[in-house]
Amino acid sequence: MELLSADNPVVAAYMIAAALMVLKVMGQGWVTVYRMMKSDSGLVSPEDLRPGPFNKTPRAEQLERNDYVDRSRRIHRNDLENIPAFLAIGLLFVLVAPPVLLAQILFYGFVAARIAHTIAYTTKQSHEVRATFYTIGSLVVIILALYVLGAAVF
Amino acid sequence: MELLSADNPVVAAYMIAAALMVLKVMGQGWVTVYRMMKSDSGLVSPEDLRPGPFNKTPRAEQLERNDYVDRSRRIHRNDLENIPAFLAIGLLFVLVAPPVLLAQILFYGFVAARIAHTIAYTTKQSHEVRATFYTIGSLVVIILALYVLGAAVF
Amino acid sequence: MELLSADNPVVAAYMIAAALMVLKVMGQGWVTVYRMMKSDSGLVSPEDLRPGPFNKTPRAEQLERNDYVDRSRRIHRNDLENIPAFLAIGLLFVLVAPPVLLAQILFYGFVAARIAHTIAYTTKQSHEVRATFYTIGSLVVIILALYVLGAAVF
Repeated sequence: MELLSADNPVVAAYMIAAALMVLKVMGQGWVTVYRMMKSDSGLVSPEDLRPGPFNKTPRAEQLERNDYVDRSRRIHRNDLENIPAFLAIGLLFVLVAPPVLLAQILFYGFVAARIAHTIAYTTKQSHEVRATFYTIGSLVVIILALYVLGAAVF
Repeated sequence: MELLSADNPVVAAYMIAAALMVLKVMGQGWVTVYRMMKSDSGLVSPEDLRPGPFNKTPRAEQLERNDYVDRSRRIHRNDLENIPAFLAIGLLFVLVAPPVLLAQILFYGFVAARIAHTIAYTTKQSHEVRATFYTIGSLVVIILALYVLGAAVF
Repeated sequence: MELLSADNPVVAAYMIAAALMVLKVMGQGWVTVYRMMKSDSGLVSPEDLRPGPFNKTPRAEQLERNDYVDRSRRIHRNDLENIPAFLAIGLLFVLVAPPVLLAQILFYGFVAARIAHTIAYTTKQSHEVRATFYTIGSLVVIILALYVLGAAVF
């Protein structure tokens, strides 16, 4: 089963990129948890106002929108708009046996763009900076999809 | 590796459907960007109110919810509730070697239902119209999942 | 094509877990629909206030946030933050040929943790209970990703 073996450098590049992006998505969930605990706010469910180990002094305003916590949720949502599509189409791209260098550029380019997007969003860079990294990531996924579509149709 | 080759018509149908759905999801992100720029509103982050090439005359109300922009975000969210699940279970469906015609009906039916859902939502059709297309797409994914589950268990 | 055949117990475990998780995500959408209809509220689009079979007596407050309906949407969103990543990395984990028992523990552990998370959230258990099940599911995905990363790099 060579085509899907990690000995195939295209498969290896995909596995590394996919694993990093999965860690990135899961990590963002933990950033949200960390920010909720640090700011003692940004909760989303009424029952979270019950006193307990995580919330020793509940206050109604803990349910209000808090930019520090919500920022991490927005980054997370943006990830979910891009990363699952990348994971699915990246695997199909592997199956149509693309040139190794092209695959590496697209896979690692996507990873770099998404990490840069998160850094820009976390550090409140201007809309233009964030949009640039979003665009690179989005274009990679679109190129992968067009390549797969072309290979399947022709 | 015939089973996952694009010469297999089930694989080809999956690749075409998957690539179209990935393009659909990514395209919705660009519709949101287009609507934000056209309406000069629907922004989500406080730093987007800094003056810059994308936002020459910032105003506080640009952060308010705007149905024109938010509609595209709602369509996007609805896509994310359906398309990643389709992409994952569609591939497993391919692996259990279903009848070609059944695969084509389910894969292309899903694509058609999701495109129709987006058109209905974008053009503000009644809830019933939107719900009908949502239901078709959802049932396809459920059928795929039950088929895979049956093949794996028995 | 043994490695991806359902005769391989690791593949079978993945297929069962993936199908169950896909059914879980799709089912949550239907719980939201059920709760919208039962409470006659929690609508999200202005056009949903047009009279029709689903909404015989439209009222403006039907567009307001309603915890009964929104709770199902929050559970759904939490699923989307975890399940697509699991589906993608779980398949790659299968491809690196892990020990059968480890795969079964991780796959079925994830399924159990996510079902328990939904039950805890639906029945309004304390934040700590919900967080425990979230943590188990998240750790499984992180372990899968690190294992795949290790296999691809070394």
